[in-house]
Order: sequence, then structure tokens, then C-alpha cells
Amino acid sequence: MKRKGILIVVSGFSGAGKGTLMKKLMETYDNYALSISMTTRQPRQGETDGKEYFFVTEEAFLQKVSQEGLIEYAQYCGNYYGTPRAYVEKQLEAGKDVILEIEIQGALKVKERFPDTLLLFVMPPSAAELEKRLRGRGTETEENISKRLQRAKEEAEGIENYDFIVINDNLESCTEQMHSIICAAHYTPDRNAEFICDIRKELEEGMKRSGM
Amino acid sequence: MKRKGILIVVSGFSGAGKGTLMKKLMETYDNYALSISMTTRQPRQGETDGKEYFFVTEEAFLQKVSQEGLIEYAQYCGNYYGTPRAYVEKQLEAGKDVILEIEIQGALKVKERFPDTLLLFVMPPSAAELEKRLRGRGTETEENISKRLQRAKEEAEGIENYDFIVINDNLESCTEQMHSIICAAHYTPDRNAEFICDIRKELEEGMKRSGM
Repeated sequence: MKRKGILIVVSGFSGAGKGTLMKKLMETYDNYALSISMTTRQPRQGETDGKEYFFVTEEAFLQKVSQEGLIEYAQYCGNYYGTPRAYVEKQLEAGKDVILEIEIQGALKVKERFPDTLLLFVMPPSAAELEKRLRGRGTETEENISKRLQRAKEEAEGIENYDFIVINDNLESCTEQMHSIICAAHYTPDRNAEFICDIRKELEEGMKRSGM
Repeated sequence: MKRKGILIVVSGFSGAGKGTLMKKLMETYDNYALSISMTTRQPRQGETDGKEYFFVTEEAFLQKVSQEGLIEYAQYCGNYYGTPRAYVEKQLEAGKDVILEIEIQGALKVKERFPDTLLLFVMPPSAAELEKRLRGRGTETEENISKRLQRAKEEAEGIENYDFIVINDNLESCTEQMHSIICAAHYTPDRNAEFICDIRKELEEGMKRSGM
């Protein structure tokens, strides 16, 4: 039975540790491919084109949109963000589980278009821990922290739309937990329709052979 | 966060290896409790009351039914089979994941009554392998094998009602797979409604403290 790749969307509060978690997941297991988003925002210091994002002009971005070259896109804080289609399709075809790290609106758009998508929501063990982590970065202004907490509150409204939550209290165990969830998802009946159909056919033929 | 037990129904073709799989699962992990069914059928050689089944008279069985002491019950080949309620509730309360090994009609009844139930369907890697295993037992007549294959064909019609399939090609990996699926099931949003609600409240309070 050829294993087909699953499309996975990972969302979660800013500060819940998605970035570190994705990195650890990629390092630990070899069945994943991480999709790189395209954006019109300026690269931050230390960011490289093609690594964190593909950095493009607004013109180039909108051209991609018109060519249906993006699975989903959204505007956020005045910049465009989108998921290039070609890479995702190629990796799924090759049997990889492809991870998109996008926010809730994008997640729901992807799920609508590809109902088979697995939606995961990364959560901190508590709101207090989330605030602590945001402050711990040392790079955020008070205003920004407030904005992010406000946004977390908004995003929290959508958690029920996700298939699973992932509680990031410890990097190792959280990575394992996430991997377990994705492995399990490979065994839903709808993701094994072909196998189930084959068994049914075989049973049918077995019955005929026995003259039943 | 207190871990609540999940009610799990395991079904599958006769000959798919459910019994061995359950035994291995119990031996390997300590978060499970296996429910023992009550039946009016006669014990087979080697079967002990309270181990494979609780063997009771039809009168005792029907009394249990009238007292709502069974979660579900069904008649199969002229005998009654049912799941005693008290044991299940006690184990769930203690945080154990409780496994019922019952056939599809019973499974659907349990799911209707307890929508949170996780339904797992154990399958052989192929129909040919299933037939081979049934013959391999050496205890089944040709007529019985035909009957069981016929029944497998009927049960196969209901697979889409199950949450996950478990493919029993190798005992060790299948046991792990099943355990992974059950662990993952603990992380659906509806099984963590309390935790999600707490985080929301905390975020709300955090906002208020910051005077937003």
C-alpha cells in the first residue's frame, strides 16, 4: 500500500513556540516537508529569501495569485502572505506529509478547498506561560505584547475548527505528540478508501469462489 | 490537567487478530482497561467465568437489561452479549481508556449513546490473509469459514462509520499503531473543552489587567 502524504496546517498563538516545534519535527523525522510561504513584507534581520519566506514584490505576489499559483493567501498587518501550490503538490505526490504554518483564516480556507487537510493548533500550557514567553523574547514592545495577546484571544475563538490541539509544555514530548497525531491521521477510513475498497472486492471474489 | 479516560470500541473481522492484539496492548501499556462482556452462551473449553466473559443465564441477563445495567447488548447466533455499565464507568472515572471489543451493531449503539466514543476497526492486511488465518486456526469447519467470510463481507460495509482502521500485519507494530491512535484521540478540541475554556478566560483576564 503506497502511503499518501497528508496536508497539515499548523496554527497557534504567537509565542506558543510553533517555529521551534517545526524545526525539531523536521530534524527528528523524515516524513515531513515544510512549505515556505511567499510574502510581500520586508525581510527582518537574519532572514534569508527562500528559507523563512520567499520575499517578493506586491506585483509578483498578485501575479502569482492571478495564475492560481497559491493554495491560499491573506493580508495581515498590511502585507500579503501565501502558500505556493507547486511545492506542496510535488511533496504530497512523493508521499511526504506537508506542513503549512498559517493562521486561522488561511487554515479554514485550505480546509474548505482540501477537506482532507489535518488542522493542528499549538497551544501554550497556560495563558500566563504565553505572556511570559512573549516577554522573554526581549524583542517585543509592551504595545506589541498587548497586540499579540489580543490576537491570541481572537484566535482562541477558532480552536474548535481544528482537528487536534498540541500542548507545547516541553519541546521533546510535544514534538512526539504532534508526530503521533499525524501518524494516527493516516489511518482514518477516508484516507484509506482504496485499501478498504480492495478488501471488499477480494471478499466478494472469495465468496464467489466458495460458490456462496 | 487531569487526563480523562476515553471509551474505545474495537471491532473487526473474525480472524483479524483482535484478541491477540488486545492482550498485547494490555501487557504493553498501563492506561487501558478491557471491559468483559456478559453472555448467555455456553463457555467453550478453557474459558473461565469473569475472564473471557461473564457467563450468565438468560434470566439474569434480561434482569440486567431491565435495570439499565448494560451499556449495549445484542443477540448473535441465538445468544445474548452485553457490556456491563458499572465497570466501564468506574474505569473511565479513574482515567483509564476503556476498551470494548464488540461488533458493529453494538459499536454504533454505543457511539449513539456516547458520541465521544472512539471507534476502531481492526483489519487484516488482505482478504487472502484473513482466509489463511481462519483456516490456520484448524478449529473451524469449511462451513464456518464460509460463514465468517460472509460475515466479514457484511461488516466491511460499515467500516466508514469507524474513526480509524488498524491494519494487523505485524503484532508489535499494530499494537503501537493502535496505542498512537488512542493517544492522539486525547488531543481533540472536544476532549479538551475545559482546558480551552480556561485559556480563554485567562487571556480575557490578562487583557483586562493590561487595561485593554
